[in-house]
Amino acid sequence: MFKVTLKKIASTLGVSTATVSKALKDYPDISEKTKRKVRSLAKSLDYKPNSFAQSLRNKESKIIGLIIPTIVHHFFSNILNGVIDAASENGYLVITLLSNESYEDEKNKINLLLEKNVDGILLSLSDKTVNYKHINRLIDGNVPVVLYDKISKSVNCSKVIINDKQAAFNATQYLIDTGCKKIAHIRGPLKPQTTIDRFIGYKKALEVNNIPFDKTLVYVSDSLSFENGYNLVLKIINDHHDVDAIFSFTDLIATGVLIRLKELDIIVPDQISVMGFSNWFLSKITSPTLSTVDQPGYEMGRKAFTLLYNELNIIRNNEPLIHEVIEIATKVIPRNSTKKK
Amino acid sequence: MFKVTLKKIASTLGVSTATVSKALKDYPDISEKTKRKVRSLAKSLDYKPNSFAQSLRNKESKIIGLIIPTIVHHFFSNILNGVIDAASENGYLVITLLSNESYEDEKNKINLLLEKNVDGILLSLSDKTVNYKHINRLIDGNVPVVLYDKISKSVNCSKVIINDKQAAFNATQYLIDTGCKKIAHIRGPLKPQTTIDRFIGYKKALEVNNIPFDKTLVYVSDSLSFENGYNLVLKIINDHHDVDAIFSFTDLIATGVLIRLKELDIIVPDQISVMGFSNWFLSKITSPTLSTVDQPGYEMGRKAFTLLYNELNIIRNNEPLIHEVIEIATKVIPRNSTKKK
Repeated sequence: MFKVTLKKIASTLGVSTATVSKALKDYPDISEKTKRKVRSLAKSLDYKPNSFAQSLRNKESKIIGLIIPTIVHHFFSNILNGVIDAASENGYLVITLLSNESYEDEKNKINLLLEKNVDGILLSLSDKTVNYKHINRLIDGNVPVVLYDKISKSVNCSKVIINDKQAAFNATQYLIDTGCKKIAHIRGPLKPQTTIDRFIGYKKALEVNNIPFDKTLVYVSDSLSFENGYNLVLKIINDHHDVDAIFSFTDLIATGVLIRLKELDIIVPDQISVMGFSNWFLSKITSPTLSTVDQPGYEMGRKAFTLLYNELNIIRNNEPLIHEVIEIATKVIPRNSTKKK
Repeated sequence: MFKVTLKKIASTLGVSTATVSKALKDYPDISEKTKRKVRSLAKSLDYKPNSFAQSLRNKESKIIGLIIPTIVHHFFSNILNGVIDAASENGYLVITLLSNESYEDEKNKINLLLEKNVDGILLSLSDKTVNYKHINRLIDGNVPVVLYDKISKSVNCSKVIINDKQAAFNATQYLIDTGCKKIAHIRGPLKPQTTIDRFIGYKKALEVNNIPFDKTLVYVSDSLSFENGYNLVLKIINDHHDVDAIFSFTDLIATGVLIRLKELDIIVPDQISVMGFSNWFLSKITSPTLSTVDQPGYEMGRKAFTLLYNELNIIRNNEPLIHEVIEIATKVIPRNSTKKK
């Protein structure tokens, strides 16, 4: 019923059904003139929000898709937990798929979810995702998508993020406040916005404190492995014998750094301070315990579902869709791998 | 079509449809006489495996349900990963639900999965599950169920387990082989078979080595928390000043034990050896690193899906169903929290 009416409006006005759909949802890329025409015709065709709601409701599967880059990862386990809890409370079930940080996998898995008629999709972009056609196609096809954690600014949809720039700025500022002057940064792969933003936050903190930025102090870890942190330590120390802090873009890497420093009899934090990012459980049990930035995965998962749920209700009620971006607060968690303020 | 024929056979023979279904699947609790009658009638009614297969195939959702007790848990994340990978390779999607170790949640979530017509369910029992009617009802209703990790011997279905008795025996034997004589055991809640079996394995190793069993050396941790291990240490030492090893039923608890011993300036392993169970990632980064028993979650997840997949094929082909129990091998991983052999 929904489709027939959309088609009727589209053919009468000589526009595409996508345009009609977007016009009814008040998308900014449709002209006001077209929107007026569409609304007026929809009204005259007795295009009742309630009957529309009814027809859509019948099509609902009450299943949503969740795509995560990797699962055996404290942060993403927490995301999954938050999503499943919030979904359960609202009568939705969750199909979880892994992109394994692969762009091809991400595309294929979105297709699998569409074949099962999921009502919407929560997605954290893989590190290898190079364009967003597969996501824009969903949005154009009225399948709500919420991006969480690893997002792209180029995609026009709702998002849940942390302010990575500010979080990394605060972490670096904390190191500076405790006397560190030569701070190495281990950053992640070049692509995801989270890594880029953490790097920018680090650089900004140096700038604000009049510490010259030295690009040779920035090291790239292309994967999220404990071993990468372990292996980078010797290189950092050889390159910069006077380095007094290492700020890693994630706890797992920082843990490898801590263990290698211990093996080398370098005292943390007296000789080198170590700061992680994410507040994984393991940061509480390293020796010394790891100072880090709390990145609340459970809350992010809940919020991501809530945004999707809101969009489903808006679509069901045929109200204009407004994309929301929720930014979750973070804070530095000082432990024993950094000096006291 | 399937149901009509089952009903016809049942009413003709004056038995229940469940009996007919079980007889066709060669269940041991149906007499040979009944099985012969059912098979003979099924044949005379032209109960063709192919048409049955066809009808069932059309009903397949290619979605399975996975119920796990708790998700932010290295072992269960690995299980989930193994299940999702194996399912993806075979064209199945996975709806994951949490029982949160609650019997009521477990029942409710099974019902939710049935409403979505999942093809089968993988289940690890909650610690609070007190009877198995809700699972037997599934099996009787031709919804294949595979139990993994936390199972019950009272349920007649396929299972994937490790040999917890043997694994705990080996862990305790390892402690004895490295000179420990007074070994405390922190066991889990009284209900799940895994905990019971680990306790039995511990006791058996003492017996084989002529070390008298002392029940005051056995401590119960009612939840899987790091803090429980941390808090039990002082009690253990106060109760038994000469304890020389602590064998915990899981790594998370053992990690709390290690941290508390360190705070108390008790040297591990010289004064007290510590042995965990599961080989979580964190056991590699504790200080000292934690000796443990490897419990391969990823492999268990894959095997659980494979058993379910096999049953779906068997049912589709109307072949007799035989439940399989797969036991995954474990091994002791010696690290630095125990003495050398």
